[in-house]
Amino acid sequence: MKLEIDGERREVRALWYEGGKVMMIDQRCLPHDVRILELRSCGQVADAIRDMTVRGAPAIGAAAAYGMLLAKRDGEDLQAAARTLRSTRPTAHDLFFAVDHMLRKLAEGDDPVEAAEAYCDSIVEKCRMIGVHGEPLIKDGAKIMTHCNAGALATVDHGTALAPMREAWRKGKQMFVYVSETRPRLQGMKLTAFEMLNEGIPHAIIPDGASGHFMRKGVDVIIVGADRIAANGDFANKIGTYEKAVLAHELGIPFYTAAPISTFDFSIKSGEEIPIEDRSEDEVTMIDGMRVAPKGCPALNPSFDMTPHRYLSGIITEIGVLKPEDVVKVREARLS
Amino acid sequence: MKLEIDGERREVRALWYEGGKVMMIDQRCLPHDVRILELRSCGQVADAIRDMTVRGAPAIGAAAAYGMLLAKRDGEDLQAAARTLRSTRPTAHDLFFAVDHMLRKLAEGDDPVEAAEAYCDSIVEKCRMIGVHGEPLIKDGAKIMTHCNAGALATVDHGTALAPMREAWRKGKQMFVYVSETRPRLQGMKLTAFEMLNEGIPHAIIPDGASGHFMRKGVDVIIVGADRIAANGDFANKIGTYEKAVLAHELGIPFYTAAPISTFDFSIKSGEEIPIEDRSEDEVTMIDGMRVAPKGCPALNPSFDMTPHRYLSGIITEIGVLKPEDVVKVREARLS
Repeated sequence: MKLEIDGERREVRALWYEGGKVMMIDQRCLPHDVRILELRSCGQVADAIRDMTVRGAPAIGAAAAYGMLLAKRDGEDLQAAARTLRSTRPTAHDLFFAVDHMLRKLAEGDDPVEAAEAYCDSIVEKCRMIGVHGEPLIKDGAKIMTHCNAGALATVDHGTALAPMREAWRKGKQMFVYVSETRPRLQGMKLTAFEMLNEGIPHAIIPDGASGHFMRKGVDVIIVGADRIAANGDFANKIGTYEKAVLAHELGIPFYTAAPISTFDFSIKSGEEIPIEDRSEDEVTMIDGMRVAPKGCPALNPSFDMTPHRYLSGIITEIGVLKPEDVVKVREARLS
Repeated sequence: MKLEIDGERREVRALWYEGGKVMMIDQRCLPHDVRILELRSCGQVADAIRDMTVRGAPAIGAAAAYGMLLAKRDGEDLQAAARTLRSTRPTAHDLFFAVDHMLRKLAEGDDPVEAAEAYCDSIVEKCRMIGVHGEPLIKDGAKIMTHCNAGALATVDHGTALAPMREAWRKGKQMFVYVSETRPRLQGMKLTAFEMLNEGIPHAIIPDGASGHFMRKGVDVIIVGADRIAANGDFANKIGTYEKAVLAHELGIPFYTAAPISTFDFSIKSGEEIPIEDRSEDEVTMIDGMRVAPKGCPALNPSFDMTPHRYLSGIITEIGVLKPEDVVKVREARLS
């Protein structure tokens, strides 16, 4: 992704390995301040995952892979390092996957730097291919809508939902992106709009409740990310996704989710089985540490919602754009 | 409405006349602080309208009526007072209506206090009747959803959308109200939840994007306000209303708007003709005076959206619950 750092516009990843250190954009300071942290040990990487300096499941996995690399280089006990990294966040599957992957590669005697870089490169390559497969869905001059941040910051580079937009933009297509702000944590406003600004893509932040209004005025395609996709194509994503899918269906606007095939969970038959995380009401009643709600008023804060596959035009993956009913092909691809 | 003032729970209006002064809840301090201002002159009332101490079209009209009363009592030039009041806000129809009404009543020799009180009482009575007609739509134990603030604070007392809930609650029905926070200005969170808290009605604030999620889990009825209703029943209301109407339609949930018949605009055939006010992007990018969006990212801020009448189960008015196709009856009632 393009990012202005210290007044200079650079092409960077959300994190990378350089001169024996893990370099990481401090996402806690975004969008007001772009700071690059230099992490020198596995312990520092673990701290950065825990305190959300790095966020987004694929980016967390990449950080963990680099953490294992530092642990190996420093001659640490690898099993202890793995335990430390695994303990940082409870949910993200990529974290555990990355740690196990590195343990196996290091046990096989692979070069630690090469193994970690290969792991990160594979994430980036999947996102790049999501961009390549999704790009034709964006016509020149398209009005696009997205939600939350399924961008480069969450996925090391390119993003998932944002990858087709980046690819179309680099190919010279004109576009305008409606960025739904995504309350309560405002990842659309704070991260996606920030990525658009840095990429130079024309965009505007809109309140979540204005999505339908702008869809009715004319949106050509909607692309969002996915946190988990069930075997029937139902998917969970950031709260507010379901609403947009229903409105898009009502108005005849194509609605896509973009995700690597690792997002499919074949152990779950339908979206009804996906557990929805309820988070603290403080995220709703407070904004940037300031209380905005009346004292004594409770709030509800479901972090995700579930969108039935009938509202979905397709799933943009690294192996192509799939119809919900094609999910079985994904399974074959993953097993192959 | 019930309100806790200085530790004491009282039954109050948003503004009232007492001891030769206009008493007014300072809505700029809500919900964190309940302050009652004492206004002693027409000029002070005009200032209070201008600086949004009082807001909501019917409440503004009531304030203007009281302002004219103070001008008359103080022996001011009534035409000059009327000009001052009219100049405070450009949009609210009720403001001009109230000023003209008082000028006429005072010219006819009516008692100024009686004329102003009668004007305010008529607003309150219309809202009370909206409550009476809307109450049967709320079954005991109902889960209700509303949006923005169509409450007592905006309408002197009772409210429009909130009036049926108040009426049902006073009749002893149990209920739970999902209060959609209503970005960008958060009137749902800051005013409606505050009114619910003071009334003692069980409720929770939800992010606007969570509305569909909770509707899918089970909502019995949705009631919102209206800023303008066209001759075919299409209506404009706070941004985010249209989305809820479409979702309700998809899920089979009854969806009502509540408004006095003065809200109907027969000069407009359909909602497509209703102009939508675009407000400052600062309302989106800043919250309570604090910038939350990345510097340089634009925002769009349509204040209202338009809901086609086909999504509407009915319109709750002071003369009964009307189907959109019954709007012609409203016209007859208003002419009679």
